[in-house]
Amino acid sequence: MNSERFNNGIKKYEEIFGSSASGIIDQLGDMGKYVAEFSYGDVYSRTGLSLKEREIAAIAMLASRSGVDAMLRIHIKGALHVGVTYQQIEEIIIQTALFSGFATAIQSLQVLQEFKQSD
Amino acid sequence: MNSERFNNGIKKYEEIFGSSASGIIDQLGDMGKYVAEFSYGDVYSRTGLSLKEREIAAIAMLASRSGVDAMLRIHIKGALHVGVTYQQIEEIIIQTALFSGFATAIQSLQVLQEFKQSD
Amino acid sequence: MNSERFNNGIKKYEEIFGSSASGIIDQLGDMGKYVAEFSYGDVYSRTGLSLKEREIAAIAMLASRSGVDAMLRIHIKGALHVGVTYQQIEEIIIQTALFSGFATAIQSLQVLQEFKQSD
Amino acid sequence: MNSERFNNGIKKYEEIFGSSASGIIDQLGDMGKYVAEFSYGDVYSRTGLSLKEREIAAIAMLASRSGVDAMLRIHIKGALHVGVTYQQIEEIIIQTALFSGFATAIQSLQVLQEFKQSD
Amino acid sequence: MNSERFNNGIKKYEEIFGSSASGIIDQLGDMGKYVAEFSYGDVYSRTGLSLKEREIAAIAMLASRSGVDAMLRIHIKGALHVGVTYQQIEEIIIQTALFSGFATAIQSLQVLQEFKQSD
Amino acid sequence: MNSERFNNGIKKYEEIFGSSASGIIDQLGDMGKYVAEFSYGDVYSRTGLSLKEREIAAIAMLASRSGVDAMLRIHIKGALHVGVTYQQIEEIIIQTALFSGFATAIQSLQVLQEFKQSD
Repeated sequence: MNSERFNNGIKKYEEIFGSSASGIIDQLGDMGKYVAEFSYGDVYSRTGLSLKEREIAAIAMLASRSGVDAMLRIHIKGALHVGVTYQQIEEIIIQTALFSGFATAIQSLQVLQEFKQSD
Repeated sequence: MNSERFNNGIKKYEEIFGSSASGIIDQLGDMGKYVAEFSYGDVYSRTGLSLKEREIAAIAMLASRSGVDAMLRIHIKGALHVGVTYQQIEEIIIQTALFSGFATAIQSLQVLQEFKQSD
Repeated sequence: MNSERFNNGIKKYEEIFGSSASGIIDQLGDMGKYVAEFSYGDVYSRTGLSLKEREIAAIAMLASRSGVDAMLRIHIKGALHVGVTYQQIEEIIIQTALFSGFATAIQSLQVLQEFKQSD
Repeated sequence: MNSERFNNGIKKYEEIFGSSASGIIDQLGDMGKYVAEFSYGDVYSRTGLSLKEREIAAIAMLASRSGVDAMLRIHIKGALHVGVTYQQIEEIIIQTALFSGFATAIQSLQVLQEFKQSD
Repeated sequence: MNSERFNNGIKKYEEIFGSSASGIIDQLGDMGKYVAEFSYGDVYSRTGLSLKEREIAAIAMLASRSGVDAMLRIHIKGALHVGVTYQQIEEIIIQTALFSGFATAIQSLQVLQEFKQSD
Repeated sequence: MNSERFNNGIKKYEEIFGSSASGIIDQLGDMGKYVAEFSYGDVYSRTGLSLKEREIAAIAMLASRSGVDAMLRIHIKGALHVGVTYQQIEEIIIQTALFSGFATAIQSLQVLQEFKQSD
């Protein structure tokens, strides 16, 4: 039986991404359980920041690093769903050039451009 | 003579941090010129994101990395000045634990706690 | 009232580090709660790896990165307490030179040497 | 003529990975010579840690970073060959979520899952 | 109308890479404007280092990181065009093994080998 | 008895840094042996790049990362000794802003400024 934290996490995940969490969570096994319980049930369920602000922060963290393109794509979807616009995501990515340089920023921009084309 | 971009950057810097930019910019030499012109004159002067949203993104980028404590402290000051609260900065830092792990998140939290004590 | 996961985490923490968890956990606020519940109550309480093997992995992760010296020191203490020897920690750090280069490896070695001198 | 360190490195490589080193080493040119001599002839030939412990450390270092999937796959093969089980590799990867966050941990888990399916 | 910095950047870009900048710059939107103006119009147009020395530095920065293979390929092309030889690029990559470890160095070497084969 | 590679490494180290290697190498124990043998005896003794070009690359690798200030200081000393000027080191650091962002670049510039003041 799933914990209350797990069920809250699934609900929060679906509120952010607008799609069922079950496939992604199941396929990660025990790690998926922690993603649901801790990431979405505990942290993303906290008050103090709106989901829009949390997704601005998520895009900022992921777009300023290299090698996490798959996760960036997932949070581009989430950011759009909670009200961040394409233009705002591009603004955050342009800002990452200041903090992490153009090599990473350009790659993150290309992830966004590909996402937009397939949207 | 300073360029219009430089002067705009200085104004934007002072709008974000609430204190004179001249000391910091001067002490960095040519790099300081680029910080003023490009970081604050070009990028931070763009529309599309509020300064509060830009500083949420800046905190997210810096708090999710190790080894940039000095710059994190500067943007904690900026974030507070444009309306992000201490509690919200702590929320962003807690969220970094998901994206970058506890080693970095705890260190960023300690930077925030020290900043608050000396504030 | 603390959750069962929190209490289990505190016990696991004290089993690894051989000293009271309360100071460290309290001083981190809500982040400390998650460290206790998730890091030690959930993950470190899993079976499949011995605590010695988990601390070998922890040293490997921290010694192969730059900028997390404080956390490396904490896990040097934990590693020693669960039966990893100083010589073995040095072996792991020498191995990090292969995976992360000498700049990081030398710095991690110096953290170990300073820890040993103050031990 | 190859040095004694080179020949020892090749033997150690084949002891760890259970397959011929010659293809991989040759294709890297002078870098391959150093991999054989220094990585396997010098460092991996040291005593103090068992090969199983060295591969636990190797998985920990690689799974906690992004962008080194190819090398992670190689050491998953090595870890399995010296007696680390699939379940233990998954445990190490779950532990990386604590130290490096879920973005990297999930990606490393997917490398493991793909390796297992093609095994 | 494009700024003088933009036009200078385009010229500098084409001097380094030996091919038209317009495709790449256009496809990046506003980020492309900053790449032209700031990266090539401001920084790469500075004196004090030859373009050959700047491309040695660029290869060093990119080959010592993981996850920026696309940008590494671009600067391999630039380095060759301003007079760095294949053998010298391989030397820089071998040197990255000292500073960033073999996982990254081997991957960067493979990017170079693939570039050479398709050249 | 030290190997020929060790002795060559010590000579190369002293050629680069202009000061005795023995203190630094001894204090690192077995790691110091590998630094002498592999870093300076093998890699830095290779032909194809001048020592000046190798130190340009070393500064580029270290100044573009965070958390390796101590090693950056060592190679600033080496770079100056083999003929890279202060102004050229500053140029490389300004160039790192493009590849790694201003947070790291500013910190590396401050390491250079402090080195120069104490020189």
